[in-house]
Amino acid sequence: MSMETAPVGRPRDPEVDRRIAQAALDVFAEAGWSGFAMETVARRAGVGKASLYLRWSSKEAMLADALTLRIGRVADVDTGTLPGDLTELAAQVLRAYAGDTGRAALRLTLEAATIPSLAGHYDAMRTAEIGAARAIVRRGIARSELPAGTSVTLLLNTLIGGAMMRALTSPADKRPMTARDIIRHARQLVDFLLNAVTTSALQ
Amino acid sequence: MSMETAPVGRPRDPEVDRRIAQAALDVFAEAGWSGFAMETVARRAGVGKASLYLRWSSKEAMLADALTLRIGRVADVDTGTLPGDLTELAAQVLRAYAGDTGRAALRLTLEAATIPSLAGHYDAMRTAEIGAARAIVRRGIARSELPAGTSVTLLLNTLIGGAMMRALTSPADKRPMTARDIIRHARQLVDFLLNAVTTSALQ
Repeated sequence: MSMETAPVGRPRDPEVDRRIAQAALDVFAEAGWSGFAMETVARRAGVGKASLYLRWSSKEAMLADALTLRIGRVADVDTGTLPGDLTELAAQVLRAYAGDTGRAALRLTLEAATIPSLAGHYDAMRTAEIGAARAIVRRGIARSELPAGTSVTLLLNTLIGGAMMRALTSPADKRPMTARDIIRHARQLVDFLLNAVTTSALQ
Repeated sequence: MSMETAPVGRPRDPEVDRRIAQAALDVFAEAGWSGFAMETVARRAGVGKASLYLRWSSKEAMLADALTLRIGRVADVDTGTLPGDLTELAAQVLRAYAGDTGRAALRLTLEAATIPSLAGHYDAMRTAEIGAARAIVRRGIARSELPAGTSVTLLLNTLIGGAMMRALTSPADKRPMTARDIIRHARQLVDFLLNAVTTSALQ
């Protein structure tokens, strides 16, 4: 364990960091990478351009930090049961795509492949999702809740794709999903998909 | 029924129309609506800007025509069985999202909600998808292949979302899906999802 070094100059204000991160995601969501500029983010966050350059040497680094801070990565949570684990995973995906960070997450999904500077962040997100899904499926098989040979890819693609479609087909002017809506929809999605994997062994 | 009126001036060349449509989709896929301009499309298609203005009065109209010509809408095909109908639907979705029109289709999905001029086209696409899915589910229930009360929305979101994720997670440098890959993946996706809906009545 190492002590954190004190920042040079004035201590950074976490509220300003959060405001800059949200502004960066909003600009990216609306204009994409082709319209992403430090100046636009500074104006939107209500801070000087110099504040941004003190914190980040490039717009790539700033966007990567904003994505990490506000969207984060899917984490594997071991709830003890397969439906519990999958519902947790679905809820995390819905939070990322349906919340006030949703359009930025969708943008990243679409643009990462063609923008080298974002590809690393997207790959890390995707790797975390696959890792979580693999661990959930492995535990499910070990507890005999799932047939061996369950396709991690199909389960993950339909679960994440289903959550993305739910987020995409909500009109922008509709009220955002509440925490309760998210849990309810995660349960519906998982109930629907679980029938797929748990019964395929019977056919 | 009405006779088509002959075009004024030289007859239009269908090959030029196709080249312009592909150029329009390529520019939209790469730069999004914020980077979409008649001039860029003309340069890419290797035609004069005047040719475009002779055909379309606005870039909105040009892009809408290109999307209709090259991506089209999902059509309901009655194959006589539920797995057959759903495989056909999944294959149509995979063709739209995984082919050389795929990035433009994904862009439309992402940007339509915030761009009024594209919203109509996206709504029409989505309405066609929902209509096809409803008709397939209705026939499936009538033939007792599906339990009454099957969720059209969950089936459609997981099927289309699953196909989108398959398209999104293919690296750009990988060879495109062949017609055979598309049918094979459509079958896998449908086998996986059909277990979900056909067995939920047993639980």
